Amino acid sequence: MVLEAVQRLPAETTHTADAHGRVLAEAIVSQRTLPPFDVSAMDGYAVRCADLAGASKSAPVALRVAFEVAAGAAPDRAVAPGTAARIFTGAPVPPGADAVVRQEDVARDGDRALFALAPPAGDNVRPAGEDVRAGETVLESGTRLGAGALGVVASLGRSVVAVHQRPRVAILSGGDELIEPDGDPAGGRIVSSNSYSIAAQCREAGAEPVYLGIARDRPEELERLLRAGLSSHVIVSSAGVSVGDRDYVRPVLEKLGCELIFWGVRIKPGFPLVFGRFGGSTDGPFVFGLPGNPVSAMVTFEEFVRPALRKLAGHRRCFRPRVDAVLGEPLRKPTGRMHLVRVTLARRDGRLVATSTGNQSSGVLRSMALAHGLLPFAADATELPAGAPVQVQLLDDEILAAEDSGL
Amino acid sequence: MVLEAVQRLPAETTHTADAHGRVLAEAIVSQRTLPPFDVSAMDGYAVRCADLAGASKSAPVALRVAFEVAAGAAPDRAVAPGTAARIFTGAPVPPGADAVVRQEDVARDGDRALFALAPPAGDNVRPAGEDVRAGETVLESGTRLGAGALGVVASLGRSVVAVHQRPRVAILSGGDELIEPDGDPAGGRIVSSNSYSIAAQCREAGAEPVYLGIARDRPEELERLLRAGLSSHVIVSSAGVSVGDRDYVRPVLEKLGCELIFWGVRIKPGFPLVFGRFGGSTDGPFVFGLPGNPVSAMVTFEEFVRPALRKLAGHRRCFRPRVDAVLGEPLRKPTGRMHLVRVTLARRDGRLVATSTGNQSSGVLRSMALAHGLLPFAADATELPAGAPVQVQLLDDEILAAEDSGL
Repeated sequence: MVLEAVQRLPAETTHTADAHGRVLAEAIVSQRTLPPFDVSAMDGYAVRCADLAGASKSAPVALRVAFEVAAGAAPDRAVAPGTAARIFTGAPVPPGADAVVRQEDVARDGDRALFALAPPAGDNVRPAGEDVRAGETVLESGTRLGAGALGVVASLGRSVVAVHQRPRVAILSGGDELIEPDGDPAGGRIVSSNSYSIAAQCREAGAEPVYLGIARDRPEELERLLRAGLSSHVIVSSAGVSVGDRDYVRPVLEKLGCELIFWGVRIKPGFPLVFGRFGGSTDGPFVFGLPGNPVSAMVTFEEFVRPALRKLAGHRRCFRPRVDAVLGEPLRKPTGRMHLVRVTLARRDGRLVATSTGNQSSGVLRSMALAHGLLPFAADATELPAGAPVQVQLLDDEILAAEDSGL
Repeated sequence: MVLEAVQRLPAETTHTADAHGRVLAEAIVSQRTLPPFDVSAMDGYAVRCADLAGASKSAPVALRVAFEVAAGAAPDRAVAPGTAARIFTGAPVPPGADAVVRQEDVARDGDRALFALAPPAGDNVRPAGEDVRAGETVLESGTRLGAGALGVVASLGRSVVAVHQRPRVAILSGGDELIEPDGDPAGGRIVSSNSYSIAAQCREAGAEPVYLGIARDRPEELERLLRAGLSSHVIVSSAGVSVGDRDYVRPVLEKLGCELIFWGVRIKPGFPLVFGRFGGSTDGPFVFGLPGNPVSAMVTFEEFVRPALRKLAGHRRCFRPRVDAVLGEPLRKPTGRMHLVRVTLARRDGRLVATSTGNQSSGVLRSMALAHGLLPFAADATELPAGAPVQVQLLDDEILAAEDSGL
């Protein structure tokens, strides 16, 4: 339902240097042929293969070095029969020459060069257009601009590029018991850590978090903060979405004209989740009312908010990577709700073994700090035996790398 | 040799809000117990279980609601026998009460509440210290601050935190043929795309790139840019590291007092790689002279520079994640050098299938834009048959996720 409601954001123009991780909103069609002419792949000598047809170690052939071609120079002189041209990596192969011999294979003596081998035609030459031809579509619209794609865009002389807008996410928390980290915890006040973890989750999803602050348990304060969030693409509120006397999120959303798309999902942690949209169209802003418990807020963000942000940004793949693992211990639960079990992963005998992070209470934020992934445990299932094959949603792919630094 | 030469950088203090992805340079020891007292996990009623011992649907028990406890209030009143207290999620459970009954299970009538069940002791109560106890080490030094860990740090009231410094990387390119993307490509000049791809690779590794520009093929210009890079932790230069007449990197490095640790590795692409350090200590700056070919530069960055940057930043896992795959087509090569084959990955019948991106010429940057990973093909091997089990270094874990957005 979330992915159906959300469409990718319109395009904007950004500097190529700032476009890392963004999604192309245009096809990149090359105006250039690259390399523009045959270029040397080595430092050496441009030769005519016919001149060296019989060359060998025992019968080397000498050619006069007639001129030199540097990289960045246009090829304006031809290699005449019986001569060679000194050439450098990236320099255009001059007319007449049809191969380059590496300098390591050439003995130089004044203006003469001695060749001990007969190169095949095209040796050490990168032909014109090997990388790209003018008019060719080099990257499709919808491509994620990773490091390699970014280099390709730059190599075509494009210093700006059209990408889908980056979703801006307004974050707010609700509750009289909440303080900022530097606040006084006396009287049982607790730090509103959700703004930290949710902002980090936004960044991991490629979105831009904007923190609006803590709404006290009064409808007018919640309304003020929600209004401030209306200029964002997405509003993420945590706490205040249950059915308690002081849970004002739903009535305030309705007062502001929000269309509620769903309310409540059969998962644990995270049952009391709200998803809605303002404006009666697919333009948003969209609003997610997450539970206040730090773990519930993080898990529902992963399952519902992250896919929405990824689709808004134009990505084709919106969910976390999934890896196959086997369960390291039995898991049990009642039927009724899907559980999203926080698990660690370890490599054992060439397989990944998933183990619960321990106490799965939704108040225990450490379970998310320790977790490498989330293991969906189906709503109608009650038991997963040790050794069962499972699929884990990866929160951090670092675990798939070897521990190697010696730190 | 790179990981032996490089040690993690010293600590610096940063705002918790800016610490995402950094590595802790201190153990986080809690000054607080969380929750600080027993708190309610639900909106409902705090009760004494003994009062409701016999309660059932057919024989509900009524209790007088004596007072109300909001979240953020200190527990200053006790629940007397025969009474209950209205309570909200996150509020302290008042003395006397030993369980909370969810409001959904209670019928309210004026100042009386009707209970149709007998809760077990501790029901819907999060005990004091369930998450953290004062004095406990919550996160070890060396922990990577992901979203969950960041939330934990904030929840302990820490608005600043000690992390290892983020490596600063000075990037420069060398060559008379190079232009910036907006430059005139006439005469065979080519865009210095390496500065774009290498800057993106630095960011992916958690480092901060600083672009110094293009050094023309004169030793004094290279020296000027290298000197400008000496205040960084790492200098990454591309091009000019071969043995050509105009490859000044090595002599200029030696003139500047750089200790060369190695020169040349038996890999393809990327043979002419230089690694050295200034200052004769482990403090750096370290210098990597990468080949000029865009693909060679990117591949050698992945294999050599990235692990160094990760170790400098304090990470335990420095290499890319590795996944098991089977080869989709046979691969052949001569002996002598390890090849790092750019491959795409696709899921087929529950397995990952690795296929070459096509033309593996080191000039074809598109091979890196398309690649999901790098496949090491051992130096002494000549053939890998189709179907062979291989390990692929993942450049982008997105491929492990389902294609799901409908875009």
